Amino acid sequence: MLGSTHGTFTTDLRARVVACGEAPRDAVHGVTAVAGDLDVSGRPLHLPVPDLDRFFRPESVAVVGASDAEGRPNTGITRQLLAWAERVGARLVPVHPTRTSVFGIDCVPSVRALAEPVDLAVLLVADPLPVIEELAETKVKFAVAFASGFAETGEAGAAAQERLAAAVRRSGLRLLGPNTNLNAFERFRDDLEGPAVALITQSGHQGRPVFTLQELGVRLSHWAPTGNEADLETADFLSYFAGRPEVGAIACYVEGLKDGRSFLLAADRAAREGVPVVAVKVGRTETGARTAASHTGKLTGADRVVDAAMRQFGVIRVDGLDQLQDTSALLARARRPLADGVVVYSISGGTGAHFADLATAAGLSLPVLHQAKQDELHQWIPEYLNVANPVDNGGHPVGDWRGRKIIDAILADPSVGVLICPITGPFPPMSDKLAQDLVEAAEATDKLVCVVWGSPVGTEEAYRTTLLGSSRVATFRTFSNCIGAVKAYLDHHRFTAAYRSPFDEAPRTPSPSLRKAQALLRPGRRLSEHAAKQLLRAYGIRVPREQLVTSAAAAVRAAGLVGYPVVMKASGAQLAHKTELGLVKVGLTSASQVRDAYRELTDIARFEEIDLDGILVCQMVGRGVEMVVGVTQDELFGPTVTVGLGGVLVEVLNDTAVRVPPFGEREARSMLDELRGRALLDGVRGAPPADVDALVEVVLRVQRMALELDGDLAELDINPLMVLPRGQGAVALDALAVCR
Amino acid sequence: MLGSTHGTFTTDLRARVVACGEAPRDAVHGVTAVAGDLDVSGRPLHLPVPDLDRFFRPESVAVVGASDAEGRPNTGITRQLLAWAERVGARLVPVHPTRTSVFGIDCVPSVRALAEPVDLAVLLVADPLPVIEELAETKVKFAVAFASGFAETGEAGAAAQERLAAAVRRSGLRLLGPNTNLNAFERFRDDLEGPAVALITQSGHQGRPVFTLQELGVRLSHWAPTGNEADLETADFLSYFAGRPEVGAIACYVEGLKDGRSFLLAADRAAREGVPVVAVKVGRTETGARTAASHTGKLTGADRVVDAAMRQFGVIRVDGLDQLQDTSALLARARRPLADGVVVYSISGGTGAHFADLATAAGLSLPVLHQAKQDELHQWIPEYLNVANPVDNGGHPVGDWRGRKIIDAILADPSVGVLICPITGPFPPMSDKLAQDLVEAAEATDKLVCVVWGSPVGTEEAYRTTLLGSSRVATFRTFSNCIGAVKAYLDHHRFTAAYRSPFDEAPRTPSPSLRKAQALLRPGRRLSEHAAKQLLRAYGIRVPREQLVTSAAAAVRAAGLVGYPVVMKASGAQLAHKTELGLVKVGLTSASQVRDAYRELTDIARFEEIDLDGILVCQMVGRGVEMVVGVTQDELFGPTVTVGLGGVLVEVLNDTAVRVPPFGEREARSMLDELRGRALLDGVRGAPPADVDALVEVVLRVQRMALELDGDLAELDINPLMVLPRGQGAVALDALAVCR
Repeated sequence: MLGSTHGTFTTDLRARVVACGEAPRDAVHGVTAVAGDLDVSGRPLHLPVPDLDRFFRPESVAVVGASDAEGRPNTGITRQLLAWAERVGARLVPVHPTRTSVFGIDCVPSVRALAEPVDLAVLLVADPLPVIEELAETKVKFAVAFASGFAETGEAGAAAQERLAAAVRRSGLRLLGPNTNLNAFERFRDDLEGPAVALITQSGHQGRPVFTLQELGVRLSHWAPTGNEADLETADFLSYFAGRPEVGAIACYVEGLKDGRSFLLAADRAAREGVPVVAVKVGRTETGARTAASHTGKLTGADRVVDAAMRQFGVIRVDGLDQLQDTSALLARARRPLADGVVVYSISGGTGAHFADLATAAGLSLPVLHQAKQDELHQWIPEYLNVANPVDNGGHPVGDWRGRKIIDAILADPSVGVLICPITGPFPPMSDKLAQDLVEAAEATDKLVCVVWGSPVGTEEAYRTTLLGSSRVATFRTFSNCIGAVKAYLDHHRFTAAYRSPFDEAPRTPSPSLRKAQALLRPGRRLSEHAAKQLLRAYGIRVPREQLVTSAAAAVRAAGLVGYPVVMKASGAQLAHKTELGLVKVGLTSASQVRDAYRELTDIARFEEIDLDGILVCQMVGRGVEMVVGVTQDELFGPTVTVGLGGVLVEVLNDTAVRVPPFGEREARSMLDELRGRALLDGVRGAPPADVDALVEVVLRVQRMALELDGDLAELDINPLMVLPRGQGAVALDALAVCR
Repeated sequence: MLGSTHGTFTTDLRARVVACGEAPRDAVHGVTAVAGDLDVSGRPLHLPVPDLDRFFRPESVAVVGASDAEGRPNTGITRQLLAWAERVGARLVPVHPTRTSVFGIDCVPSVRALAEPVDLAVLLVADPLPVIEELAETKVKFAVAFASGFAETGEAGAAAQERLAAAVRRSGLRLLGPNTNLNAFERFRDDLEGPAVALITQSGHQGRPVFTLQELGVRLSHWAPTGNEADLETADFLSYFAGRPEVGAIACYVEGLKDGRSFLLAADRAAREGVPVVAVKVGRTETGARTAASHTGKLTGADRVVDAAMRQFGVIRVDGLDQLQDTSALLARARRPLADGVVVYSISGGTGAHFADLATAAGLSLPVLHQAKQDELHQWIPEYLNVANPVDNGGHPVGDWRGRKIIDAILADPSVGVLICPITGPFPPMSDKLAQDLVEAAEATDKLVCVVWGSPVGTEEAYRTTLLGSSRVATFRTFSNCIGAVKAYLDHHRFTAAYRSPFDEAPRTPSPSLRKAQALLRPGRRLSEHAAKQLLRAYGIRVPREQLVTSAAAAVRAAGLVGYPVVMKASGAQLAHKTELGLVKVGLTSASQVRDAYRELTDIARFEEIDLDGILVCQMVGRGVEMVVGVTQDELFGPTVTVGLGGVLVEVLNDTAVRVPPFGEREARSMLDELRGRALLDGVRGAPPADVDALVEVVLRVQRMALELDGDLAELDINPLMVLPRGQGAVALDALAVCR
């Protein structure tokens, strides 16, 4: 290519061959990868699932720092651990340098003195590091460190945590903590039946409401308070729980993540297993992200990227702890839906109308019941009441034998997958019987029966005993939580039924494009438009026919080759806002116009003291829909791919969609459906539909580029990508690339 | 103007003078107006407030159809009315044609036979019409009709309801119902203190949760179940309650409205009085609107218009009954805020981070506490914890004397108006003391103290007794309801502090423009572009210099007068999609181009068999921001004014804002702030800021036109309105007007 220095042009376009994939990236990305199973960006494609059976059900436990001295904090903790050990049938060994016994149990002076290896060591010491080093010599499987003062306190703490993590890596044991608590050793009710909720939290206090669900009859199997995640992280517990037969749903409270990829691999495992994951993720705002980061010392990530990543892998994101409770409880216990239709059944036309309004607004589908079904319902419900859906029974039929008949008749309809009965006002003569009928009908069906108990009091017998006493009826306190949970339930099953893991098809080896692309990179620099377009061409993305020229005569020759009319633009690595500076000339139709344009462009550049690498003489491309496609780096997930509508839409409304690689074609298409201005692609104002297939292909090629050049490419922005009418392709008219 | 018929041109542009304001419109709009106080559209500017004291606290009550026969539904109702009459100290007179006594009270055979006029007649009869006619002869003030089978059942029922309404209008009494219930005669707790919630519902069942708030310690003063609103409507109760000293907030459950204007006048009264109104309004979706309409036989209105109207008059719209409860309870009881700042205080850093995240996302302002205040808090809170806001106390300080000190210190900060303490997990040693401290601190301050009790159980002592026992602490069960209610509280006080009633400045008499405009109207027809623009000109809205011509020679003369370059367009009442048909020619710079264009345009029109009223020769207008401004008719509110961004933004995204007249300049400006593409008006991509003042002026002139021509103008659409750079005005380039 350019080999000469001429006028204002620079020729510093040196090829740079970057060694790719030389070092395993597991250390960088914080994940212990399965050896050799990495994608082309060096990120792992499998997450080893830690065997945490012995953590949650150990046979033997050492308590380092155990105490029975009155008034010492460790005494209360020791007492609680003793009670827990007894419940799970574990042998507890107190470890204390000076005492001979604690609570009547013989002490050993140090972990080295343990007679035989224990499954779990609980460290009640201010500095767990020396103990970890001692434990490395034993065959202990797990340790828990409660001590605080690590990454959550700032830089010095983060360094101490890194030393601790390094000691753990050397030791061969797995550590929970530091800065964790007793939540894993709580008393779980063992009298509750059915699939359970497993809980993962980064703040003990925030997990308490979900844990307390047991008092409403919802079974809980585990609680993992991950603390600072120096070793074991949210993803480890997520993938472990996804494989446990007793777990029906996993509820997470996440403030930050240690690593994006490991979280996605764990979510992928849950999606493959069909186990729903419901998560609160703090960080909707800057304030929240900052506060959460200072609380746990973890990364919160760009919120819209987190949001997209969770949706890609089916994680159900909610904002409130009440939604976390209600949604995970429903998803744990409800069977696979037999249909998507929702019927609203109530004893008040007002309640039915209101609920149906909100349910429809949330995207639930309320099928109109067939006339035959309506006729059947009118056997028991007065003719003047609406039974099309919502079904209004007018009150009276619930008081007698008709009540149950109506419920059964609705549930028997093949279009109905969910029956929801909102009971806003408790009126015992009606609501008690209605609650009982619903519980009995729910026992006799595989379909989902939901009740909203709308009384703000909540101490009523029908609620506390009848409804909460049933594991088959899902009971809510508000319309919105019921609607949100039912939507999540139907969406989850639709998602998992269609799920194909993108990790299975993620590229493992570089494409032939990589070497061509690497030759164009300039570490730490921004590429000129021409170079950026060559990068795109290396990955098979169409750019206009164009030539970079450094003389007026060459420009005229280039125009002849490119074909009139042509566009001429100044090209240089430092160039931005070309149009505003007058450095773009369009619709040039003759050699003399080209010559004039060349002179004018170089004059402006000289006047503005802008270094150019040449003047681009480009083919004029036909009209289409202007889009933008780009790559940006996320602190949690690495490269992300963005697509959006160009022009005013992206500038004023930021109408873009983002995805985290790896993702497939279906996901790329779904990005377009997220755009508010999506209709532009289908053609408005008589414009023809755009070549969406070509656009999707560009998105996928950009993804490939982002993965292969990860580490070398800081940013890529194709703006505009002109998407021509269907069948005519898409052309990158301008591009910006910044190398790392 | 045009006086000749020529070629394909029609000249049917007859002036039509419409008698305006001849008949009072109160019958049409369903409002009994204060005589003579109408706006220029004929709608009332004042709503007489019915004196409902004797309805809610009558001295004497006749019960028509009273019964004590076992098993009859009226017997239960009579019993309940007797109990109520005793509570409120009213004398009850049973009315029955054959019985001599009911429950031991002497009967009269008919209402005519009443010894003296009663305040209230309760009609327990299937057909209330004859009784209303009899009551007309007595001096009874109020009647209540429970019977159903009216407008809620369809056309025949609606006709029966109209007959009933007519009888009521003749009678001089005021009627509640038909199709209402006993809610107004419920037992209200009289042991609760502080400002009360007054409740208005169109479905008894849907009001039950708010009524039940009394069991959580919230005082309720009234319940108006408005039923079918044949006479007394939601607005009547709203304006009555707004004037009652014991009412702190009004909670409404609305399915449909009888009349838009009367509702707005009532909301205006509440806004003037500073009484907050919180409303659920069904009809977010078509499904909901349809179901609600069939339930009550009322109009639901276009939802976005309802939404805008409510915001204009400060009505706080919520979607859930739980939000209705929580928001109205808070607004009833909280004092005027002393500052807008919210501090989040918790015993867990996680809880604080999570709550702060959601609160900030909802638009609450969480000021960072000054260093001096932080230092003060660190006297009691360990140094490593964040006390900037959210304030994390780490747990321990709440257990002793420090707990109360911290709360008082936060409340003493002048930037703080609201302290919110989320307690997600009850831990009695801490949470009981914390709850008690909060209650005591709340008693000692005028600032708002909120608690979120996050346990899903809700039977805990600290919640039931300590928190709910206080009328000074506002207690919630979820983060989102607390945040929503606090936002509504701060917004309400900001709104009422700045509120100026638009009814005070609404035009009462037509402007000089009206007569000019009326001359242009053609009943039932669509106007040509030229005529529509003249309509705009009549109201002082700028249009391009243009002439309508009917010959090529005239076109050339016109171009000379208008000034080159010119635009030429076909003009005709039936014309739509001019551009697509090739009926617009732009940038014509010479007489010969004008002649050619004239021939071409008339040829196309002849070929397409389109009637033209001429060819428009128009001035070319400079570049600016394309907007749309329009008028549409709403079934509830009459004319509404819309403004939006033109071009692709309005076509693909429907980026528009709507308002219900009357509204002032501030409201017109706020419409622009609602637009997602608002930034375009401020100038993007180096474009100069647009003349927003001129745009606002156009919106206000269009409003004036909409009011003055109401009844004559079905639809108006200025598209595009070219808003030129600041100082240069705005020009309507094209307009569409449809007459009624």
